Amino acid sequence: MTRVPDLPLAVSLGDPAGIGPEVIAKCWDNRSAFDLPPFVAIGDGHSLAAVWDGPITVIDDPSEGDAAFDLGLPLLQVPAGTPDLPGHPSIAGAHCSLDSLELAVGLARSGSVAAVVTGPVAKEQLYAIGFTHPGQTEFVAERCGVASANVAMMLAGPTLRTVPVTTHLPLGAVVGGLTSSLIESRGRAVLRGLQRNFGLAEPRLAVTGLNPHSGEGGALGQEEIEIIEPAIAALAAEGWRVSGPHPADTLFHAAARAHYDAALCMYHDQALIPVKALHFEDAVNITLGLPIIRTAPDHGTAFDIAGQDRADPRPMAAAIRMAAGCAAYRSDTP
Amino acid sequence: MTRVPDLPLAVSLGDPAGIGPEVIAKCWDNRSAFDLPPFVAIGDGHSLAAVWDGPITVIDDPSEGDAAFDLGLPLLQVPAGTPDLPGHPSIAGAHCSLDSLELAVGLARSGSVAAVVTGPVAKEQLYAIGFTHPGQTEFVAERCGVASANVAMMLAGPTLRTVPVTTHLPLGAVVGGLTSSLIESRGRAVLRGLQRNFGLAEPRLAVTGLNPHSGEGGALGQEEIEIIEPAIAALAAEGWRVSGPHPADTLFHAAARAHYDAALCMYHDQALIPVKALHFEDAVNITLGLPIIRTAPDHGTAFDIAGQDRADPRPMAAAIRMAAGCAAYRSDTP
Repeated sequence: MTRVPDLPLAVSLGDPAGIGPEVIAKCWDNRSAFDLPPFVAIGDGHSLAAVWDGPITVIDDPSEGDAAFDLGLPLLQVPAGTPDLPGHPSIAGAHCSLDSLELAVGLARSGSVAAVVTGPVAKEQLYAIGFTHPGQTEFVAERCGVASANVAMMLAGPTLRTVPVTTHLPLGAVVGGLTSSLIESRGRAVLRGLQRNFGLAEPRLAVTGLNPHSGEGGALGQEEIEIIEPAIAALAAEGWRVSGPHPADTLFHAAARAHYDAALCMYHDQALIPVKALHFEDAVNITLGLPIIRTAPDHGTAFDIAGQDRADPRPMAAAIRMAAGCAAYRSDTP
Repeated sequence: MTRVPDLPLAVSLGDPAGIGPEVIAKCWDNRSAFDLPPFVAIGDGHSLAAVWDGPITVIDDPSEGDAAFDLGLPLLQVPAGTPDLPGHPSIAGAHCSLDSLELAVGLARSGSVAAVVTGPVAKEQLYAIGFTHPGQTEFVAERCGVASANVAMMLAGPTLRTVPVTTHLPLGAVVGGLTSSLIESRGRAVLRGLQRNFGLAEPRLAVTGLNPHSGEGGALGQEEIEIIEPAIAALAAEGWRVSGPHPADTLFHAAARAHYDAALCMYHDQALIPVKALHFEDAVNITLGLPIIRTAPDHGTAFDIAGQDRADPRPMAAAIRMAAGCAAYRSDTP
């Protein structure tokens, strides 16, 4: 049984034309089977009604969410103007998804909701309305007043948690973007995040190498020696349990995974390939280093299947469950 | 039941001080449980006797192997001079491992054995005796007269086969080492290899992107557009079933794996992370594009545990089984 926090969760619908509304509605339908606590949807009600004929209860304040949740999906309405058709994103929908996200974050910061779960947004449409962040993670960090180097995007599945140090960079720019300072900052965010959100008093961090075989002592690259090892030494000197650099290809099988609580990886695919290979249906994206709790399913808007009742709600359910678990842990913590 | 080829297999012991002799001896011990066909060990008998008290039958010619196999481990002796202690590699041992490999390849080329399975060698010691290849794969290719661009190092597990286009390059050198021509050459070697060794008449190849999200249409890198897509188009124009470039992080879960027979990846860790995360105990390294069959377990010499009876023979057993299966398939093929 998921531990239930004292306040409802806020779940932003994401882009109204994507699969966000559908998977969130399906989560409410299956709230018992998925073991979900009360949550409040934030977004445009039309996008829900377009793909779902279940009961929606429009509320004015998250405090009404708990009582409303048994009878229908509680909704804090953020109108999108002209309703989008599923699978057909628009500029108005992008504005709506951004307003919903901002409202959800604000409610979490003011203590009105226990955590934020974000539905998938359409970056192309967001860029068209002047959004300048690489993704929702960086936007949420900025709204929380945290520098982006001090947050960490963790992908967490049942048997593996990974975090990329560099995120959405072309592979050819990874070497240039990797610094000891960034590895340290991300590492600290991960270690503190594991303590704060997952109740691990002495979390263990495994750090990967950048090059094949972790550079083979310099024969296959110098970054392990020049950049990664100093960062590991600095974190260890602060008392953290940190190991590495480990060759990435032998770090993710079951016996290896037993030796750490999270793996800090040097670039996007190094972190995301193993967790998605092992936990495609239930890996959750959680942002560490924020004053609030924020999780998300690790999938996009999937416009190609929106409105066809084909979207799998399990990743969204896993994101809601993990947010609730972290929130209950935090509220239990003295 | 593994199909049994007409000739025995040749299994080189690898470095005499590594775990090669131990795992090969354990394979003979467990030949029934592991479902292994007759094989002949090639290397220094002392290295076997140092870690194993089972029966060894020294033979002069592989043709004696089948008959000898029931009574003991058949051995084609390649003396190492002063015997190495397990875990303590030497220059003499490196010479022995190279001579054993060369003999095994020669026997396969002359049709005296059905296939070659190679035990793990110590690169550092090999470099010290003038070996200039990145690994055994490139050495075997040269001895077979095949250009290294035309061979492919496949990691094959029960549910996933991957091949890196670039192999042992520092990550920062991957972009510079990636060409359409190399992707095409590797792709052809893989596709023909799947036909020839695995009996797949119309093999399906999935090609990854290089950058996160496969470059997002150019926003996260140009290599997909400029290098990878043209190579895919060229292979498709030859009639091969090739798809991609696919974002690498979503290519390796079970539902995705059902759509291809092998994934062609752009660099070492992109190929090896998923197959080792999923199939650490039974992934086999098989070289495609050669006139002979060559497999190997995907582990190293493990000097740190050599001589302690702790080495897991399952990867070597999987390599022997796969070599036998490929050889039986080839001998069945008109």
